[in-house]
Amino acid sequence: MTSEVQPETPRARLPRTLTRDLSAHDGQQVRLQGFVHARRDLGGVQFVVLRDVSGVTQCVGSGLHLPLAESSVEVVGTVKAHPKAPGGFEVQIAEFRVISAAVEPPPVEIPKMEWHVNPETMLDYRVVTVRGLKERAALKVQAELVAGFRDHLMAEGFTEISTPKIVSAGAEGGANLFPIDYFGRAAFLAQSPQLYKQIMVGVFERVFEVAPVYRAEEHATSRHLNEYLSLDVEMGFIEDEEDVMALENRLLAAIMERLRATAQAEFTLLGATIPEVPAHIPRITLLDARALVTEKYGHAVGGKDLDPEAERLLCQHYAEQGSDFVFVTKYPRAARPFYAHPDANADGTPSTEITRGFDLLFRGIEITSGGQRIHDHAMLMDSIAAYRLSPESLAGYTEVFKYGMPPHGGFAIGAERLTAKLLGISNVRYARAFPRDRHRLTP
Amino acid sequence: MTSEVQPETPRARLPRTLTRDLSAHDGQQVRLQGFVHARRDLGGVQFVVLRDVSGVTQCVGSGLHLPLAESSVEVVGTVKAHPKAPGGFEVQIAEFRVISAAVEPPPVEIPKMEWHVNPETMLDYRVVTVRGLKERAALKVQAELVAGFRDHLMAEGFTEISTPKIVSAGAEGGANLFPIDYFGRAAFLAQSPQLYKQIMVGVFERVFEVAPVYRAEEHATSRHLNEYLSLDVEMGFIEDEEDVMALENRLLAAIMERLRATAQAEFTLLGATIPEVPAHIPRITLLDARALVTEKYGHAVGGKDLDPEAERLLCQHYAEQGSDFVFVTKYPRAARPFYAHPDANADGTPSTEITRGFDLLFRGIEITSGGQRIHDHAMLMDSIAAYRLSPESLAGYTEVFKYGMPPHGGFAIGAERLTAKLLGISNVRYARAFPRDRHRLTP
Repeated sequence: MTSEVQPETPRARLPRTLTRDLSAHDGQQVRLQGFVHARRDLGGVQFVVLRDVSGVTQCVGSGLHLPLAESSVEVVGTVKAHPKAPGGFEVQIAEFRVISAAVEPPPVEIPKMEWHVNPETMLDYRVVTVRGLKERAALKVQAELVAGFRDHLMAEGFTEISTPKIVSAGAEGGANLFPIDYFGRAAFLAQSPQLYKQIMVGVFERVFEVAPVYRAEEHATSRHLNEYLSLDVEMGFIEDEEDVMALENRLLAAIMERLRATAQAEFTLLGATIPEVPAHIPRITLLDARALVTEKYGHAVGGKDLDPEAERLLCQHYAEQGSDFVFVTKYPRAARPFYAHPDANADGTPSTEITRGFDLLFRGIEITSGGQRIHDHAMLMDSIAAYRLSPESLAGYTEVFKYGMPPHGGFAIGAERLTAKLLGISNVRYARAFPRDRHRLTP
Repeated sequence: MTSEVQPETPRARLPRTLTRDLSAHDGQQVRLQGFVHARRDLGGVQFVVLRDVSGVTQCVGSGLHLPLAESSVEVVGTVKAHPKAPGGFEVQIAEFRVISAAVEPPPVEIPKMEWHVNPETMLDYRVVTVRGLKERAALKVQAELVAGFRDHLMAEGFTEISTPKIVSAGAEGGANLFPIDYFGRAAFLAQSPQLYKQIMVGVFERVFEVAPVYRAEEHATSRHLNEYLSLDVEMGFIEDEEDVMALENRLLAAIMERLRATAQAEFTLLGATIPEVPAHIPRITLLDARALVTEKYGHAVGGKDLDPEAERLLCQHYAEQGSDFVFVTKYPRAARPFYAHPDANADGTPSTEITRGFDLLFRGIEITSGGQRIHDHAMLMDSIAAYRLSPESLAGYTEVFKYGMPPHGGFAIGAERLTAKLLGISNVRYARAFPRDRHRLTP
């Protein structure tokens, strides 16, 4: 009556070969599976460009009835060196089988897509346009970037955490929150795991999280998403924010090293270069950065922070000095949230003006906000008062600071923004599989 | 004006030692940092049990003014072998420094916590109770489990994806969805990445995602969470669901191997055993499973599926045969969603009764639901009609199946449920750092 344990049935077929491995099979018969990326029927002879996860290969046969583009197919055939074919090899088709036929032609021709022609249409048809070689290359790079992030942090003794995305209040204040109906109660989508990663410093000392975060920003720009993948780090028992920047420096170097090992082909396809990470990324204080941009480039910087043009110019300056990265340090309190740790005055007392917050700029744009956080309960309560915030509404935040939180700090990297800047992608939406923006809720 | 690149200032202090490494420093002076896990003042002599990320160590000194429990502290002292001390070593304190003093005693004594005494209080004070050794051990095991999941899948050529958690409709139908106000439009929290992982099979062939999912289930049980971490897998170009089960079999073996290498201490602390994964996990059809439970144990199974008692009994049967795991296969259509692939009749035609869906049971409970999915557009539209669902409302789902989707299947594992079962934790809420349930939205 019950199934007994049985060895798996052997499937006596030629094993599948991936297109990237064809060079090892020159002159041999192989079995390929993939999608009809492109097709051409010259009457007597048919060409099929087969796309699998590893690349594309031209297959040639005769007497074939070609299915629509994007159909999934199986080819059994002989590998022949062919200098003009993509990848340097072609497969001469002996057997051709349609695994699953497309029932309509794709709404856009996958091999010929260009984002700039009609970006909204590209996103409307994302369920199939995401199959494009460049589109998937961006997502592959992001997957490797995230893997590099995790692997390096685990090697430095960090523990991965998973924290709530349904919260009762925003960590950064009340603005830009998406409301949720939580069994009839008001709740929100988390803008950041900020408090939770701080709490977890009390548990594991060093923690990270890779998870979506939510910003209900009304404006649609090329650098913002309403849902994005946040790479969050928090580290305890630090001296000051320098420990955090040194960690991020090592982390970025490890990520780029991994990309060089696993995603060079994707960078080449997209015409992009994997940056060198300096052993010591240059630092400049915000005040000095503003002065530099004004003096060197004549750009008067508005506001308390750097504006986008100032970020671009500052990066241009450091690129000339050989670094694609620069830390902007010592942010003023006015540009940072209440939990930013004050810098020390010369006499050791806490500054009322300057924090230990920093940004990291890369190729013209901020990719990280980070810093040391206040860990002392009394200092935190003073800061809440100085920011004219309500201690009652922040009681859920301040609770853990009663219990001996050590000095700590951290940062967050937006995965899509970093991916886009690495690859020279003009709009951050194209670095997410299924972006959500002000107007887009599908697919 | 600009900061020049400077070498980091050397910090000429004794480097920090973790408590787990004390045996390498017997007789030497070390610097420890951590939290005051427990404390005792006998007048002339003071004992501090210091807890760091790696364990606990007893430190002994005299003339110390001990801070409150959970304060973070630094100890410089000499390591002495001490058979009765936890870990076999004790540190004789030469210097004692309070890094950050707790300002209140913790609401519960961290070393003495017991979940069964008052579980709601434990969750109310989770910001500090999560520091408990057993509490953090569970989360550490989960982190290693998730790392093992990712690493094995990447080694088998899977690509990690990140898909939207804000969706316009539910993948599994309209029930149990949390509504979101998305810029004035109705949206929902995703119950599963089901459609998105299927779409991405058209891109990367083999994909996985580790991300939260949401179920607005009104009932609170020991096995359900309203927000949980879903370990999702989808695999293209399969023959049938057997390929998917074989993958999950290999994956579980790899995860357990990793846990043996990285988390044995946590299992020991919690009195739990890392299971052996059979080279071929036994399979039994649902019909045979129902019959077995009735015939062997006299349990009449209600409904179309297995009830919780039947799951428990079936696992008991297979445990007697040496397996903590069993696949229950060939689920009836009535117990599966519309996208479940029908099994084949003896003549090769699709069954109208039986699907290629399976569950995986482990130590008495279902930890996976999976199966082959319908990839053929016409078959999918027929299934939608047979389930009396609206093709219009599912148009967002069916779109991608016009474009040659290959045969594919996958599964999902609830990280907290698997963690809880591995560790013998009675309630799945205790296997999540900050659980969300019917009544709990904080901390």
